[in-house]
Amino acid sequence: MDIERYFLETLQKSAITQGIGDDGVVLAHLPKNLVVVLDLFSEGVHFKRKWFSCEQIGYKALMVNISDVISMGAVPKYALLGVTLPKNITPAEMRALIKGIKRACLEFGVRVIGGDTIVGQTLSLSVSLLACCAKPLYRVGARKGDLIMHTGTLGSSYQALHTLLRGGKVSGHSKFYAPQLKACAHFMQEARSILHVGMDISDGLFAECNRLSKANRLAFKINNPLYPPHKRAFLSGEEYEMLLCLAPKHKLKAYRLAQKHRLKLRIIGRVQQGQSHYRPKIWHA
Amino acid sequence: MDIERYFLETLQKSAITQGIGDDGVVLAHLPKNLVVVLDLFSEGVHFKRKWFSCEQIGYKALMVNISDVISMGAVPKYALLGVTLPKNITPAEMRALIKGIKRACLEFGVRVIGGDTIVGQTLSLSVSLLACCAKPLYRVGARKGDLIMHTGTLGSSYQALHTLLRGGKVSGHSKFYAPQLKACAHFMQEARSILHVGMDISDGLFAECNRLSKANRLAFKINNPLYPPHKRAFLSGEEYEMLLCLAPKHKLKAYRLAQKHRLKLRIIGRVQQGQSHYRPKIWHA
Repeated sequence: MDIERYFLETLQKSAITQGIGDDGVVLAHLPKNLVVVLDLFSEGVHFKRKWFSCEQIGYKALMVNISDVISMGAVPKYALLGVTLPKNITPAEMRALIKGIKRACLEFGVRVIGGDTIVGQTLSLSVSLLACCAKPLYRVGARKGDLIMHTGTLGSSYQALHTLLRGGKVSGHSKFYAPQLKACAHFMQEARSILHVGMDISDGLFAECNRLSKANRLAFKINNPLYPPHKRAFLSGEEYEMLLCLAPKHKLKAYRLAQKHRLKLRIIGRVQQGQSHYRPKIWHA
Repeated sequence: MDIERYFLETLQKSAITQGIGDDGVVLAHLPKNLVVVLDLFSEGVHFKRKWFSCEQIGYKALMVNISDVISMGAVPKYALLGVTLPKNITPAEMRALIKGIKRACLEFGVRVIGGDTIVGQTLSLSVSLLACCAKPLYRVGARKGDLIMHTGTLGSSYQALHTLLRGGKVSGHSKFYAPQLKACAHFMQEARSILHVGMDISDGLFAECNRLSKANRLAFKINNPLYPPHKRAFLSGEEYEMLLCLAPKHKLKAYRLAQKHRLKLRIIGRVQQGQSHYRPKIWHA
Protein backbone atom coordinates (compact mmCIF):
# COMPACT_ATOMS: atom_id res chain seq x y z
CA MET A 1 0.00 0.00 0.00
CA ASP A 2 1.18 3.51 -0.81
CA ILE A 3 0.66 4.95 2.68
CA GLU A 4 1.39 8.58 1.76
CA ARG A 5 -1.03 8.53 -1.14
CA TYR A 6 -3.81 6.83 0.83
CA PHE A 7 -3.48 9.39 3.62
CA LEU A 8 -3.51 12.34 1.23
CA GLU A 9 -6.47 11.04 -0.77
CA THR A 10 -8.48 10.36 2.39
CA LEU A 11 -7.61 13.81 3.70
CA GLN A 12 -8.75 15.44 0.46
CA LYS A 13 -12.04 13.52 0.58
CA SER A 14 -12.65 14.84 4.10
CA ALA A 15 -13.76 18.21 2.69
CA ILE A 16 -11.62 20.19 5.14
CA THR A 17 -8.83 20.93 2.66
CA GLN A 18 -8.45 23.98 0.50
CA GLY A 19 -6.07 24.74 -2.35
CA ILE A 20 -3.78 21.71 -2.00
CA GLY A 21 -2.07 20.97 -5.33
CA ASP A 22 0.53 23.68 -5.86
CA ASP A 23 3.90 23.81 -4.15
CA GLY A 24 2.34 26.16 -1.62
CA VAL A 25 -1.00 27.77 -0.99
CA VAL A 26 -1.79 31.42 -1.61
CA LEU A 27 -3.79 33.36 0.97
CA ALA A 28 -5.28 36.60 -0.22
CA HIS A 29 -7.37 39.25 1.56
CA LEU A 30 -5.74 38.61 4.90
CA PRO A 31 -6.68 40.71 7.91
CA LYS A 32 -4.38 43.26 9.44
CA ASN A 33 -2.86 40.86 11.95
CA LEU A 34 -1.99 37.24 11.45
CA VAL A 35 -1.04 35.03 14.42
CA VAL A 36 1.13 32.06 13.50
CA VAL A 37 2.01 29.06 15.69
CA LEU A 38 3.70 25.70 15.22
CA ASP A 39 3.44 22.79 17.64
CA LEU A 40 4.66 19.24 17.37
CA PHE A 41 2.61 16.32 18.67
CA SER A 42 4.75 13.19 18.71
CA GLU A 43 4.54 9.59 19.78
CA GLY A 44 6.73 8.86 22.79
CA VAL A 45 6.94 12.56 23.69
CA HIS A 46 3.36 13.83 23.87
CA PHE A 47 1.45 10.57 23.65
CA LYS A 48 1.69 6.80 23.70
CA ARG A 49 -0.22 4.84 21.07
CA LYS A 50 -1.66 2.51 23.72
CA TRP A 51 -3.21 5.48 25.55
CA PHE A 52 -4.66 7.26 22.55
CA SER A 53 -6.83 6.18 19.65
CA CYS A 54 -5.72 7.62 16.30
CA GLU A 55 -8.81 9.82 16.31
CA GLN A 56 -7.83 11.25 19.70
CA ILE A 57 -4.30 11.88 18.39
CA GLY A 58 -5.57 13.77 15.35
CA TYR A 59 -7.98 15.82 17.40
CA LYS A 60 -5.51 16.74 20.13
CA ALA A 61 -2.71 17.63 17.68
CA LEU A 62 -4.96 20.37 16.33
CA MET A 63 -6.26 21.46 19.73
CA VAL A 64 -2.75 22.04 21.11
CA ASN A 65 -2.31 24.67 18.41
CA ILE A 66 -5.83 26.03 18.56
CA SER A 67 -5.32 26.61 22.28
CA ASP A 68 -2.21 28.67 21.55
CA VAL A 69 -3.92 31.05 19.14
CA ILE A 70 -7.07 31.37 21.28
CA SER A 71 -4.87 32.46 24.17
CA MET A 72 -3.65 35.31 21.99
CA GLY A 73 -7.17 36.48 21.23
CA ALA A 74 -7.02 35.16 17.66
CA VAL A 75 -9.48 33.13 15.59
CA PRO A 76 -7.91 30.00 14.01
CA LYS A 77 -8.30 29.88 10.20
CA TYR A 78 -5.76 27.76 8.33
CA ALA A 79 -3.65 24.71 9.19
CA LEU A 80 -0.60 23.15 7.56
CA LEU A 81 -0.02 19.50 8.52
CA GLY A 82 3.36 17.78 8.55
CA VAL A 83 2.52 14.13 9.17
CA THR A 84 4.97 11.30 9.78
CA LEU A 85 3.16 7.96 9.55
CA PRO A 86 4.70 4.73 10.88
CA LYS A 87 5.26 1.92 8.37
CA ASN A 88 2.74 -0.37 10.09
CA ILE A 89 -0.17 2.08 10.17
CA THR A 90 -3.41 0.60 8.82
CA PRO A 91 -5.93 2.31 6.52
CA ALA A 92 -8.45 2.25 9.40
CA GLU A 93 -5.96 4.06 11.65
CA MET A 94 -5.27 6.69 8.98
CA ARG A 95 -9.00 7.25 8.53
CA ALA A 96 -9.38 7.61 12.30
CA LEU A 97 -6.50 10.09 12.44
CA ILE A 98 -8.14 12.20 9.73
CA LYS A 99 -11.52 11.89 11.48
CA GLY A 100 -9.98 13.45 14.59
CA ILE A 101 -8.30 16.21 12.59
CA LYS A 102 -11.58 16.87 10.78
CA ARG A 103 -13.57 17.07 14.02
CA ALA A 104 -11.23 19.76 15.37
CA CYS A 105 -11.25 21.63 12.05
CA LEU A 106 -15.04 21.65 11.80
CA GLU A 107 -15.44 22.68 15.45
CA PHE A 108 -13.28 25.76 14.91
CA GLY A 109 -13.81 26.50 11.22
CA VAL A 110 -10.22 25.65 10.24
CA ARG A 111 -9.22 24.70 6.66
CA VAL A 112 -6.22 22.45 5.95
CA ILE A 113 -4.34 24.36 3.25
CA GLY A 114 -1.24 22.25 2.82
CA GLY A 115 1.48 20.17 4.34
CA ASP A 116 3.67 17.16 3.81
CA THR A 117 3.28 13.45 4.53
CA ILE A 118 6.10 10.94 4.97
CA VAL A 119 6.52 7.40 6.26
CA GLY A 120 8.91 7.19 9.19
CA GLN A 121 9.55 5.45 12.50
CA THR A 122 6.83 6.83 14.74
CA LEU A 123 3.58 8.75 14.41
CA SER A 124 4.25 12.48 14.61
CA LEU A 125 2.27 15.56 13.64
CA SER A 126 3.63 19.03 13.07
CA VAL A 127 0.78 21.52 12.93
CA SER A 128 1.23 25.11 11.80
CA LEU A 129 -1.80 27.25 12.41
CA LEU A 130 -2.60 30.66 10.97
CA ALA A 131 -5.12 32.73 12.86
CA CYS A 132 -6.74 36.12 12.39
CA CYS A 133 -6.79 38.74 15.01
CA ALA A 134 -7.99 42.32 15.37
CA LYS A 135 -5.91 43.10 18.46
CA PRO A 136 -3.46 40.44 19.62
CA LEU A 137 -3.08 39.60 23.30
CA TYR A 138 0.47 39.04 24.51
CA ARG A 139 2.27 37.61 27.53
CA VAL A 140 3.63 41.04 28.29
CA GLY A 141 1.14 43.69 29.40
CA ALA A 142 0.42 42.96 33.08
CA ARG A 143 0.10 45.94 35.43
CA LYS A 144 0.72 46.11 39.15
CA GLY A 145 -2.53 45.32 40.97
CA ASP A 146 -3.97 43.21 38.12
CA LEU A 147 -6.00 40.17 39.08
CA ILE A 148 -4.63 36.82 37.91
CA MET A 149 -7.38 34.50 36.69
CA HIS A 150 -7.67 31.24 34.87
CA THR A 151 -10.51 29.53 33.06
CA GLY A 152 -11.87 26.10 34.01
CA THR A 153 -10.44 23.89 36.73
CA LEU A 154 -6.86 22.69 36.89
CA GLY A 155 -5.40 19.33 37.78
CA SER A 156 -7.36 16.80 35.77
CA SER A 157 -4.65 16.38 33.12
CA TYR A 158 -2.11 15.56 35.82
CA GLN A 159 -4.60 13.13 37.35
CA ALA A 160 -5.24 11.48 33.97
CA LEU A 161 -1.53 11.10 33.24
CA HIS A 162 -0.96 9.68 36.73
CA THR A 163 -3.76 7.12 36.21
CA LEU A 164 -2.45 6.11 32.76
CA LEU A 165 1.13 5.74 34.02
CA ARG A 166 -0.17 3.35 36.69
CA GLY A 167 -1.97 1.27 34.08
CA GLY A 168 -5.43 2.67 34.76
CA LYS A 169 -8.09 3.88 32.35
CA VAL A 170 -9.14 7.47 31.70
CA SER A 171 -12.47 8.49 30.17
CA GLY A 172 -12.37 9.69 26.57
CA HIS A 173 -14.23 12.79 27.76
CA SER A 174 -11.28 13.80 29.95
CA LYS A 175 -9.59 17.06 29.05
CA PHE A 176 -6.45 14.97 28.59
CA TYR A 177 -7.98 13.58 25.39
CA ALA A 178 -10.43 16.26 24.44
CA PRO A 179 -9.54 19.82 25.48
CA GLN A 180 -12.71 21.91 25.80
CA LEU A 181 -11.90 25.15 24.03
CA LYS A 182 -15.08 26.31 22.33
CA ALA A 183 -16.40 28.32 25.28
CA CYS A 184 -12.90 29.68 25.89
CA ALA A 185 -12.68 30.86 22.30
CA HIS A 186 -15.96 32.79 22.56
CA PHE A 187 -15.02 34.24 25.94
CA MET A 188 -11.57 35.36 24.76
CA GLN A 189 -13.06 37.21 21.78
CA GLU A 190 -15.66 39.04 23.85
CA ALA A 191 -13.41 39.77 26.82
CA ARG A 192 -10.49 40.91 24.68
CA SER A 193 -10.86 44.61 25.47
CA ILE A 194 -10.50 44.11 29.25
CA LEU A 195 -7.60 41.61 29.16
CA HIS A 196 -4.00 42.71 29.72
CA VAL A 197 -2.28 39.34 29.36
CA GLY A 198 -3.22 35.94 27.97
CA MET A 199 -1.50 32.59 27.61
CA ASP A 200 -2.58 28.97 27.80
CA ILE A 201 -1.51 26.69 30.63
CA SER A 202 0.68 24.13 28.86
CA ASP A 203 3.36 23.38 31.45
CA GLY A 204 1.49 23.98 34.70
CA LEU A 205 0.38 27.12 36.51
CA PHE A 206 3.66 27.48 38.44
CA ALA A 207 5.75 27.29 35.27
CA GLU A 208 3.53 29.79 33.46
CA CYS A 209 3.53 32.25 36.38
CA ASN A 210 7.33 32.11 36.37
CA ARG A 211 7.30 32.90 32.66
CA LEU A 212 4.87 35.77 33.06
CA SER A 213 6.91 37.10 35.97
CA LYS A 214 10.09 37.10 33.91
CA ALA A 215 8.41 38.62 30.85
CA ASN A 216 6.59 41.35 32.79
CA ARG A 217 9.28 41.96 35.46
CA LEU A 218 6.57 41.66 38.13
CA ALA A 219 5.60 39.03 40.68
CA PHE A 220 2.61 36.80 39.94
CA LYS A 221 1.49 36.03 43.47
CA ILE A 222 -0.89 33.06 43.76
CA ASN A 223 -2.88 33.55 46.97
CA ASN A 224 -6.41 32.28 46.68
CA PRO A 225 -7.13 30.37 49.89
CA LEU A 226 -10.31 28.90 48.37
CA TYR A 227 -8.27 27.08 45.78
CA PRO A 228 -7.96 23.33 46.43
CA PRO A 229 -4.75 23.18 48.35
CA HIS A 230 -3.22 20.26 46.49
CA LYS A 231 -0.12 21.22 44.60
CA ARG A 232 -0.97 18.99 41.65
CA ALA A 233 -3.33 21.55 40.21
CA PHE A 234 -0.46 24.05 40.09
CA LEU A 235 1.89 21.59 38.38
CA SER A 236 -0.56 20.08 35.93
CA GLY A 237 0.38 20.75 32.30
CA GLU A 238 -1.59 20.35 29.08
CA GLU A 239 -4.54 22.01 30.78
CA TYR A 240 -5.67 24.04 27.77
CA GLU A 241 -7.07 26.67 30.07
CA MET A 242 -6.36 30.38 29.73
CA LEU A 243 -4.21 32.27 32.23
CA LEU A 244 -5.26 35.91 32.22
CA CYS A 245 -4.59 39.28 33.82
CA LEU A 246 -7.07 42.12 34.09
CA ALA A 247 -7.77 45.19 36.21
CA PRO A 248 -9.84 44.58 39.38
CA LYS A 249 -12.51 47.00 38.12
CA HIS A 250 -13.30 44.60 35.27
CA LYS A 251 -13.79 41.58 37.50
CA LEU A 252 -17.59 41.66 37.30
CA LYS A 253 -17.62 42.06 33.53
CA ALA A 254 -15.28 39.08 33.19
CA TYR A 255 -17.49 36.94 35.43
CA ARG A 256 -20.60 37.92 33.46
CA LEU A 257 -18.99 37.03 30.13
CA ALA A 258 -17.75 33.73 31.56
CA GLN A 259 -21.23 32.93 32.83
CA LYS A 260 -22.71 33.72 29.42
CA HIS A 261 -20.47 31.07 27.88
CA ARG A 262 -20.84 28.65 30.82
CA LEU A 263 -17.16 28.96 31.51
CA LYS A 264 -15.61 28.72 34.96
CA LEU A 265 -13.37 31.63 35.86
CA ARG A 266 -11.28 31.73 38.99
CA ILE A 267 -9.22 34.50 40.57
CA ILE A 268 -6.02 33.00 41.89
CA GLY A 269 -3.87 35.96 42.79
CA ARG A 270 -2.49 39.39 42.09
CA VAL A 271 0.28 40.98 40.09
CA GLN A 272 2.73 42.68 42.46
CA GLN A 273 6.13 44.30 42.50
CA GLY A 274 8.87 41.68 42.61
CA GLN A 275 9.61 38.35 41.01
CA SER A 276 8.05 34.89 41.19
CA HIS A 277 10.07 31.69 41.49
CA TYR A 278 7.72 28.76 41.87
CA ARG A 279 9.07 25.24 41.57
CA PRO A 280 7.48 23.87 38.42
CA LYS A 281 7.41 20.26 37.30
CA ILE A 282 9.51 19.62 34.21
CA TRP A 283 7.36 17.76 31.68
CA HIS A 284 9.15 15.83 28.91
CA ALA A 285 12.51 17.61 29.23
CA MET B 1 22.01 18.55 29.46
CA ASP B 2 18.65 20.11 28.70
CA ILE B 3 18.78 19.59 24.93
CA GLU B 4 15.64 21.59 24.10
CA ARG B 5 16.80 24.58 26.09
CA TYR B 6 20.32 24.54 24.66
CA PHE B 7 18.95 24.42 21.13
CA LEU B 8 16.50 27.24 21.72
CA GLU B 9 19.06 29.48 23.45
CA THR B 10 21.59 28.90 20.67
CA LEU B 11 18.95 29.63 18.06
CA GLN B 12 18.00 32.88 19.79
CA LYS B 13 21.65 33.95 19.95
CA SER B 14 21.92 33.40 16.19
CA ALA B 15 20.16 36.72 15.53
CA ILE B 16 17.83 35.24 12.93
CA THR B 17 14.82 34.95 15.27
CA GLN B 18 12.05 37.47 15.73
CA GLY B 19 9.24 37.64 18.28
CA ILE B 20 9.75 34.23 19.91
CA GLY B 21 8.33 34.25 23.45
CA ASP B 22 4.56 34.31 23.13
CA ASP B 23 2.41 31.30 22.28
CA GLY B 24 2.46 32.48 18.71
CA VAL B 25 3.90 35.32 16.69
CA VAL B 26 1.90 38.22 15.30
CA LEU B 27 2.57 39.41 11.76
CA ALA B 28 1.20 42.82 10.90
CA HIS B 29 1.27 44.84 7.67
CA LEU B 30 1.24 41.78 5.46
CA PRO B 31 1.09 42.16 1.69
CA LYS B 32 -1.95 41.30 -0.37
CA ASN B 33 -0.87 37.73 -1.04
CA LEU B 34 0.84 35.33 1.32
CA VAL B 35 2.26 32.05 0.05
CA VAL B 36 2.51 29.34 2.73
CA VAL B 37 4.34 26.00 2.50
CA LEU B 38 5.31 23.21 4.88
CA ASP B 39 7.93 20.58 4.17
CA LEU B 40 9.40 17.88 6.36
CA PHE B 41 13.08 16.99 6.25
CA SER B 42 13.65 13.77 8.16
CA GLU B 43 16.45 11.36 8.93
CA GLY B 44 15.98 8.02 7.19
CA VAL B 45 13.55 9.53 4.68
CA HIS B 46 15.28 12.56 3.18
CA PHE B 47 18.77 12.12 4.55
CA LYS B 48 21.14 9.81 6.35
CA ARG B 49 23.29 11.26 9.12
CA LYS B 50 26.41 9.64 7.70
CA TRP B 51 25.90 11.45 4.40
CA PHE B 52 25.12 14.88 5.80
CA SER B 53 26.79 17.12 8.32
CA CYS B 54 24.36 18.81 10.71
CA GLU B 55 25.10 22.12 9.01
CA GLN B 56 24.12 20.65 5.63
CA ILE B 57 20.92 19.25 7.17
CA GLY B 58 19.91 22.64 8.59
CA TYR B 59 20.70 24.41 5.34
CA LYS B 60 18.88 21.97 3.10
CA ALA B 61 15.78 21.77 5.35
CA LEU B 62 15.27 25.47 4.70
CA MET B 63 16.17 25.32 1.00
CA VAL B 64 13.57 22.63 0.28
CA ASN B 65 10.92 25.11 1.40
CA ILE B 66 12.55 28.16 -0.12
CA SER B 67 12.58 26.34 -3.46
CA ASP B 68 8.80 25.78 -3.19
CA VAL B 69 7.96 29.43 -2.65
CA ILE B 70 10.43 30.69 -5.27
CA SER B 71 8.72 28.43 -7.80
CA MET B 72 5.47 30.28 -7.06
CA GLY B 73 7.04 33.66 -7.70
CA ALA B 74 7.10 34.53 -4.00
CA VAL B 75 9.79 36.04 -1.77
CA PRO B 76 10.44 34.01 1.43
CA LYS B 77 10.01 36.02 4.63
CA TYR B 78 9.23 34.02 7.79
CA ALA B 79 9.95 30.47 8.97
CA LEU B 80 8.51 28.33 11.74
CA LEU B 81 10.72 25.43 12.81
CA GLY B 82 9.49 22.19 14.33
CA VAL B 83 12.65 20.39 15.37
CA THR B 84 12.93 16.85 16.72
CA LEU B 85 16.41 16.31 18.14
CA PRO B 86 17.75 12.81 18.87
CA LYS B 87 18.72 12.07 22.50
CA ASN B 88 22.40 11.64 21.62
CA ILE B 89 22.86 14.92 19.75
CA THR B 90 25.87 16.91 20.94
CA PRO B 91 26.05 20.67 21.56
CA ALA B 92 28.47 20.95 18.62
CA GLU B 93 25.95 19.19 16.35
CA MET B 94 23.16 21.51 17.49
CA ARG B 95 25.34 24.55 16.83
CA ALA B 96 26.13 23.19 13.37
CA LEU B 97 22.45 22.58 12.66
CA ILE B 98 21.65 26.17 13.60
CA LYS B 99 24.61 27.42 11.57
CA GLY B 100 23.11 25.77 8.48
CA ILE B 101 19.66 27.17 9.20
CA LYS B 102 21.18 30.61 9.73
CA ARG B 103 23.12 30.48 6.47
CA ALA B 104 19.94 29.79 4.51
CA CYS B 105 18.02 32.46 6.43
CA LEU B 106 20.66 35.13 5.85
CA GLU B 107 21.00 34.22 2.17
CA PHE B 108 17.28 34.78 1.57
CA GLY B 109 16.39 37.31 4.26
CA VAL B 110 14.22 34.89 6.25
CA ARG B 111 13.39 35.41 9.96
CA VAL B 112 12.63 32.47 12.27
CA ILE B 113 9.46 33.58 14.04
CA GLY B 114 8.59 30.54 16.08
CA GLY B 115 8.35 26.81 16.36
CA ASP B 116 8.68 23.90 18.71
CA THR B 117 11.60 21.73 19.81
CA ILE B 118 11.37 18.21 21.22
CA VAL B 119 13.72 15.32 21.91
CA GLY B 120 12.78 12.18 20.01
CA GLN B 121 14.18 9.16 18.17
CA THR B 122 15.64 10.71 15.04
CA LEU B 123 16.58 14.13 13.70
CA SER B 124 13.66 15.68 11.88
CA LEU B 125 12.79 19.21 10.82
CA SER B 126 9.39 20.53 9.91
CA VAL B 127 9.71 23.91 8.25
CA SER B 128 6.75 26.17 7.56
CA LEU B 129 7.60 29.11 5.37
CA LEU B 130 5.58 32.27 4.78
CA ALA B 131 6.37 34.21 1.65
CA CYS B 132 5.16 37.44 0.08
CA CYS B 133 3.98 37.68 -3.44
CA ALA B 134 2.53 40.33 -5.73
CA LYS B 135 1.15 37.88 -8.29
CA PRO B 136 1.45 34.18 -7.48
CA LEU B 137 2.49 31.68 -10.13
CA TYR B 138 0.58 28.39 -10.16
CA ARG B 139 0.90 24.94 -11.69
CA VAL B 140 -2.23 25.59 -13.70
CA GLY B 141 -2.02 28.22 -16.45
CA ALA B 142 -0.24 26.53 -19.37
CA ARG B 143 -1.51 27.28 -22.87
CA LYS B 144 -1.30 25.18 -25.99
CA GLY B 145 1.92 26.04 -27.84
CA ASP B 146 3.77 27.19 -24.70
CA LEU B 147 7.43 26.36 -24.47
CA ILE B 148 8.46 24.12 -21.55
CA MET B 149 11.72 25.24 -19.98
CA HIS B 150 13.75 24.46 -16.92
CA THR B 151 16.54 26.27 -15.13
CA GLY B 152 19.99 24.79 -14.55
CA THR B 153 21.01 21.28 -15.51
CA LEU B 154 19.30 18.11 -14.33
CA GLY B 155 20.68 14.82 -13.14
CA SER B 156 23.37 15.69 -10.62
CA SER B 157 21.18 14.90 -7.60
CA TYR B 158 20.46 11.43 -8.98
CA GLN B 159 24.17 11.01 -9.62
CA ALA B 160 25.03 12.14 -6.06
CA LEU B 161 22.51 9.77 -4.50
CA HIS B 162 23.78 6.92 -6.67
CA THR B 163 27.36 7.62 -5.56
CA LEU B 164 26.41 7.82 -1.88
CA LEU B 165 24.37 4.61 -2.01
CA ARG B 166 27.44 2.84 -3.43
CA GLY B 167 29.59 4.11 -0.57
CA GLY B 168 31.22 6.91 -2.53
CA LYS B 169 31.82 10.54 -1.63
CA VAL B 170 30.06 13.58 -3.01
CA SER B 171 31.41 17.12 -2.91
CA GLY B 172 29.80 19.49 -0.42
CA HIS B 173 29.31 21.89 -3.31
CA SER B 174 26.96 19.43 -5.04
CA LYS B 175 23.37 20.58 -5.48
CA PHE B 176 22.45 17.50 -3.44
CA TYR B 177 23.82 19.29 -0.35
CA ALA B 178 23.58 22.90 -1.35
CA PRO B 179 20.77 23.81 -3.76
CA GLN B 180 21.68 26.95 -5.71
CA LEU B 181 18.59 29.09 -5.61
CA LYS B 182 19.72 32.70 -5.39
CA ALA B 183 19.93 33.29 -9.14
CA CYS B 184 16.65 31.40 -9.59
CA ALA B 185 14.96 33.67 -7.05
CA HIS B 186 16.06 36.83 -8.89
CA PHE B 187 15.13 35.39 -12.27
CA MET B 188 11.68 34.29 -11.11
CA GLN B 189 10.89 37.76 -9.77
CA GLU B 190 11.95 39.53 -12.95
CA ALA B 191 10.46 37.00 -15.36
CA ARG B 192 7.16 36.72 -13.48
CA SER B 193 5.13 38.67 -16.01
CA ILE B 194 5.99 36.34 -18.92
CA LEU B 195 5.58 33.03 -17.04
CA HIS B 196 2.39 30.96 -17.28
CA VAL B 197 3.34 28.07 -15.00
CA GLY B 198 6.01 27.46 -12.37
CA MET B 199 6.95 24.59 -10.09
CA ASP B 200 10.18 23.17 -8.72
CA ILE B 201 11.52 19.80 -9.83
CA SER B 202 11.30 17.74 -6.64
CA ASP B 203 10.44 14.27 -7.92
CA GLY B 204 12.05 14.30 -11.37
CA LEU B 205 11.12 15.96 -14.65
CA PHE B 206 8.95 13.03 -15.80
CA ALA B 207 6.90 13.06 -12.58
CA GLU B 208 6.45 16.83 -12.70
CA CYS B 209 5.41 16.81 -16.36
CA ASN B 210 2.79 14.18 -15.53
CA ARG B 211 1.50 16.44 -12.75
CA LEU B 212 1.40 19.51 -14.97
CA SER B 213 -0.33 17.48 -17.67
CA LYS B 214 -3.04 16.34 -15.26
CA ALA B 215 -3.48 19.79 -13.73
CA ASN B 216 -3.62 21.63 -17.07
CA ARG B 217 -5.37 18.86 -19.09
CA LEU B 218 -2.71 19.24 -21.76
CA ALA B 219 0.26 17.17 -22.88
CA PHE B 220 3.75 18.28 -21.79
CA LYS B 221 5.78 16.89 -24.66
CA ILE B 222 9.52 16.67 -23.98
CA ASN B 223 11.28 16.72 -27.34
CA ASN B 224 14.57 18.50 -27.20
CA PRO B 225 17.00 16.40 -29.22
CA LEU B 226 19.93 18.41 -27.85
CA TYR B 227 19.21 17.24 -24.36
CA PRO B 228 21.62 14.59 -23.05
CA PRO B 229 19.84 11.40 -23.92
CA HIS B 230 20.34 9.67 -20.59
CA LYS B 231 17.10 9.04 -18.79
CA ARG B 232 18.59 9.78 -15.39
CA ALA B 233 18.27 13.50 -15.88
CA PHE B 234 14.53 13.07 -16.40
CA LEU B 235 14.13 10.93 -13.27
CA SER B 236 16.37 12.90 -10.93
CA GLY B 237 14.49 14.38 -7.97
CA GLU B 238 15.50 17.04 -5.46
CA GLU B 239 16.84 19.12 -8.31
CA TYR B 240 15.69 22.49 -6.97
CA GLU B 241 15.39 23.78 -10.49
CA MET B 242 12.32 25.56 -11.85
CA LEU B 243 10.05 24.00 -14.44
CA LEU B 244 8.36 26.78 -16.41
CA CYS B 245 5.94 27.44 -19.25
CA LEU B 246 5.87 30.57 -21.35
CA ALA B 247 4.75 31.76 -24.79
CA PRO B 248 7.28 31.28 -27.64
CA LYS B 249 7.31 35.04 -28.29
CA HIS B 250 8.90 35.57 -24.85
CA LYS B 251 11.72 33.13 -25.39
CA LEU B 252 14.31 35.80 -26.05
CA LYS B 253 13.31 37.88 -23.06
CA ALA B 254 13.55 34.78 -20.84
CA TYR B 255 17.04 33.99 -22.15
CA ARG B 256 18.16 37.59 -21.60
CA LEU B 257 16.94 37.59 -18.01
CA ALA B 258 18.55 34.21 -17.37
CA GLN B 259 21.83 35.47 -18.79
CA LYS B 260 21.66 38.57 -16.60
CA HIS B 261 21.53 36.30 -13.53
CA ARG B 262 24.00 33.78 -14.96
CA LEU B 263 21.33 31.14 -14.91
CA LYS B 264 21.11 28.30 -17.42
CA LEU B 265 17.76 28.01 -19.13
CA ARG B 266 16.83 25.16 -21.43
CA ILE B 267 13.84 24.60 -23.68
CA ILE B 268 12.83 20.96 -23.42
CA GLY B 269 9.50 20.77 -25.16
CA ARG B 270 6.08 22.14 -25.94
CA VAL B 271 2.63 22.12 -24.43
CA GLN B 272 0.23 20.31 -26.77
CA GLN B 273 -3.25 18.92 -26.88
CA GLY B 274 -3.43 15.55 -25.14
CA GLN B 275 -2.05 13.94 -22.00
CA SER B 276 1.42 12.94 -20.81
CA HIS B 277 2.19 9.64 -19.11
CA TYR B 278 5.89 9.39 -18.51
CA ARG B 279 7.25 6.63 -16.29
CA PRO B 280 8.65 8.45 -13.27
CA LYS B 281 10.86 7.02 -10.58
CA ILE B 282 9.15 6.69 -7.21
CA TRP B 283 11.41 8.31 -4.60
CA HIS B 284 10.86 7.37 -0.93
CA ALA B 285 7.35 5.88 -1.36
